Amino acid sequence: MVLVEQFACTSSDLGDGNERQQYTHDKMATHATASVFINDDEGGLLHDYEVWLEQLAPHAPTTRYEHNKTGEDNADAHLKRQIMGREVVVAITAGKLDFGPWEQIFYGEFDGQRRKRALVKIIGE
Amino acid sequence: MVLVEQFACTSSDLGDGNERQQYTHDKMATHATASVFINDDEGGLLHDYEVWLEQLAPHAPTTRYEHNKTGEDNADAHLKRQIMGREVVVAITAGKLDFGPWEQIFYGEFDGQRRKRALVKIIGE
Amino acid sequence: MVLVEQFACTSSDLGDGNERQQYTHDKMATHATASVFINDDEGGLLHDYEVWLEQLAPHAPTTRYEHNKTGEDNADAHLKRQIMGREVVVAITAGKLDFGPWEQIFYGEFDGQRRKRALVKIIGE
Repeated sequence: MVLVEQFACTSSDLGDGNERQQYTHDKMATHATASVFINDDEGGLLHDYEVWLEQLAPHAPTTRYEHNKTGEDNADAHLKRQIMGREVVVAITAGKLDFGPWEQIFYGEFDGQRRKRALVKIIGE
Repeated sequence: MVLVEQFACTSSDLGDGNERQQYTHDKMATHATASVFINDDEGGLLHDYEVWLEQLAPHAPTTRYEHNKTGEDNADAHLKRQIMGREVVVAITAGKLDFGPWEQIFYGEFDGQRRKRALVKIIGE
Repeated sequence: MVLVEQFACTSSDLGDGNERQQYTHDKMATHATASVFINDDEGGLLHDYEVWLEQLAPHAPTTRYEHNKTGEDNADAHLKRQIMGREVVVAITAGKLDFGPWEQIFYGEFDGQRRKRALVKIIGE
């Protein structure tokens, strides 16, 4: 099960651009079966990620994974999150995230279990 | 050869929580065949990682890799480290690492050669 | 199409080592089909990466990817960049990047399209 949602980055996420001109913006998933990653906001591509991750780290048969003997069935979700990454670090200049022309931040959810949270931390001058 | 060890994060790793309330904690492997990563501390899952990495980047036959013509036999370890990542960035709030409920920091060693080191850097306010 | 170039890190990249003794150096690709990564500067290994990435995320047939219905043919480049990573965070101590003995920073280009840029951000004390 893969669910991807785009983060809306509001100005409050970025702090006060006038006071903090040079800093970084760290965004991280705080669950080991979820990811925060940066890529293009294009629906076809997000579908391609889903298919690709299922090839690299298949969900079934769930018995192939030792982790699933704990009663979980989400070992594949842990592996998928390793490919997609836990956190992103984005530079900020003059109050704006330094993105490429198509880059956006996404939250990827790989097992669909439990209520989860992501964290934003801003560090700078 | 895959060896995974959990880091014990002591309070001295985190600096003085009273003085530095908002900062980040960067932990990185400084060898290109090793990794610092964050996931669950569950033995079955760590075994699953080992099996999975061997599928994605097999050690043998060692002759399949150009890098091994240098006299090394650890090209696969470089690829495994790319999947698992070189460094983690963890936010810290009020002197505590902002982990999810099951997250821990691990050192992954993929060729078992040489004495290696990892580095911790704390940046903040 | 994979092209890898080594970054030359000059002292100006690192700022003034005397004034900033403890900081981090973030280097990031700002295009979703490119990567900044750290590994060994060994030609055979860079070739091994190219072969390996083509196995994990093949370019052809281009019709296998939904993203390519947009008129692009670079869906595989987005997946390759996910494996290789978008950004690196390198600690700096006394004006020097904290590298392992063989580590270097590379720019990886996976579709060969458009003029691209990478970004360096230095944060510290």
